[in-house]
Amino acid sequence: MAVKKIGKQTLIFENKPGVSAWAAVVGPMEGQGPLGPFYDMIMPDSLCDQNSWEKAEQKMMQYSIELALEKVNRLPWEMDFLLSGDLLNQIITANFSARMLGAPFFGLYGACSTLAEGMILAGVLVDGGYGDTIGVASCSHHDTAERQLRFPTEMGIQRGQTAQWTVTGGGAYLVQAQGPGVRMTCATVGKVVDYGIKNASDMGSAMAPAALDTIQVHLEDTGRTIGDYDYVITGDLGFQGYDALRMLMRERRMPEDNLTDCGMYVYAGSQDTHSGASGSGCSAIVMGPRFFREMAQWPQKRLLFAGTGALLSPLSSFQGESIPGIAHAIAFEWAEGGADL
Amino acid sequence: MAVKKIGKQTLIFENKPGVSAWAAVVGPMEGQGPLGPFYDMIMPDSLCDQNSWEKAEQKMMQYSIELALEKVNRLPWEMDFLLSGDLLNQIITANFSARMLGAPFFGLYGACSTLAEGMILAGVLVDGGYGDTIGVASCSHHDTAERQLRFPTEMGIQRGQTAQWTVTGGGAYLVQAQGPGVRMTCATVGKVVDYGIKNASDMGSAMAPAALDTIQVHLEDTGRTIGDYDYVITGDLGFQGYDALRMLMRERRMPEDNLTDCGMYVYAGSQDTHSGASGSGCSAIVMGPRFFREMAQWPQKRLLFAGTGALLSPLSSFQGESIPGIAHAIAFEWAEGGADL
Repeated sequence: MAVKKIGKQTLIFENKPGVSAWAAVVGPMEGQGPLGPFYDMIMPDSLCDQNSWEKAEQKMMQYSIELALEKVNRLPWEMDFLLSGDLLNQIITANFSARMLGAPFFGLYGACSTLAEGMILAGVLVDGGYGDTIGVASCSHHDTAERQLRFPTEMGIQRGQTAQWTVTGGGAYLVQAQGPGVRMTCATVGKVVDYGIKNASDMGSAMAPAALDTIQVHLEDTGRTIGDYDYVITGDLGFQGYDALRMLMRERRMPEDNLTDCGMYVYAGSQDTHSGASGSGCSAIVMGPRFFREMAQWPQKRLLFAGTGALLSPLSSFQGESIPGIAHAIAFEWAEGGADL
Repeated sequence: MAVKKIGKQTLIFENKPGVSAWAAVVGPMEGQGPLGPFYDMIMPDSLCDQNSWEKAEQKMMQYSIELALEKVNRLPWEMDFLLSGDLLNQIITANFSARMLGAPFFGLYGACSTLAEGMILAGVLVDGGYGDTIGVASCSHHDTAERQLRFPTEMGIQRGQTAQWTVTGGGAYLVQAQGPGVRMTCATVGKVVDYGIKNASDMGSAMAPAALDTIQVHLEDTGRTIGDYDYVITGDLGFQGYDALRMLMRERRMPEDNLTDCGMYVYAGSQDTHSGASGSGCSAIVMGPRFFREMAQWPQKRLLFAGTGALLSPLSSFQGESIPGIAHAIAFEWAEGGADL
């Protein structure tokens, strides 16, 4: 049997599963951001014809999956499996979306790293031959997340400069065996890393050490250097966390020229979101519309996506705990006609 | 490539991954139940030397994983991956346990179906050759779950006769490639099924339709009959849900003689828990101590374990939603010396 794991944490996808389609559904504020023209659907308001924000969030996830499937002419029940998650307690967005779609379902919780976690598991399922069309979806909604994890938005609490703005948006990705395009070649599964940060308004700094750990392990396991990638893209550290990660990398004499972060692409500077975007929908509405789209135009690109998650819970914070972080990394490469990479 | 998926929802594990070790850590009330002698550790009280129930729950999960690893002479960081989950918001039990153990981590949320969900994904990882020691753990704590999902236990609310008692306990299982013993041969991944039940004190009835659906699909996909299994074991429907499932099966003229449920094994009748046990720790402290132990004594046994989960959330319930259910089924068979099954 071919080697499918190298080093301590890295999986090798020998059949290089493809990301054959994706779709993103966002709220009005995200629609006005720089990536606005590249989203599949922009909701007219934050309720999306529903009577609660939670139900609007569920619709966003459902629509994103349906829209991605449309692009490959598939119906929801033709997915072999659906893997999805969100930020809400008991991942209700994912559960109720799965109820609407009728596909065999694995529920995940990885906070903002959920997209990366789901894509790795989908990659394993396709690479191992257990299915040929797997849906992966991740979603968040500003108003549902704020009232659950911080303060209800109606309170009008002033946000700190280090706080990120939770994205109202969701993205779905289809992992399939065949076809040219974006392919997954290997992935590094992250450990939980905790530097003791307790400030729920600075989740970027809480996640940066996990991103560093996973990127370092990925390079050690694969023998690659950062320069082997055109971009190293973290999940959603935001501007504050991006600076923290650059500092940590400089300390270790790692080059950080091609480092970037999903949280810096969603909003324009004029939208005044302080440290940028976050939420489990953040990387989901950036990876496809921004990076996979660029790969299709300049196929020589090779990306490392390190999806980061802050494992924040109000309950553990009330009990004095810090905010642990996690990051999962996936290498994406372009294949013309499915040739070897 | 060999066929690894049959029918709509069933995975075939051609290398038949083994469940090489397990351990269960429980609270004092569970320790006094019929399976008491077979648990690895019984905590003296519900706090387990911690200053909150949530921290006690985290210790139970951590100890169960460490104890299972001890049985195969492995250390926590020698696990290729850890897959785990629990009932608490943001799965803090699993996240903080993973922080203590330092293994690459996938966080799952499947309510009481988490053990089955994790074992299926661990089976895929081992069967596909992506790792050779995978930990799967699931845990619940009566007092943390009650105050989060129903009423704080200090309120002394009178429980209905259809209510189950959330287990204080956790179990860990190691999935490994080699060795004789309990082997996983195939698994059916469940869809979310919802018959519109809204009563949070009757989760057994909310889950029974999902169990029925997954068992039916499993039999269709594999061409097997219920009689091919010595036991068909549902996750934790409790007495009420067990009766509901038997009724649904009789309506469909399915035999239900060898049907049983994890929720009926944890407490003695004199412990007055009404409809039996539930919680994501329930099947985790029953499958090994009760059923895998029996397989070791009477190796001809072939089991179908259908882990069930009620995807209950206080938030969606407050917004008028019903309680969807899910069930994932795994076939376990015994192998002497690793021979073909």
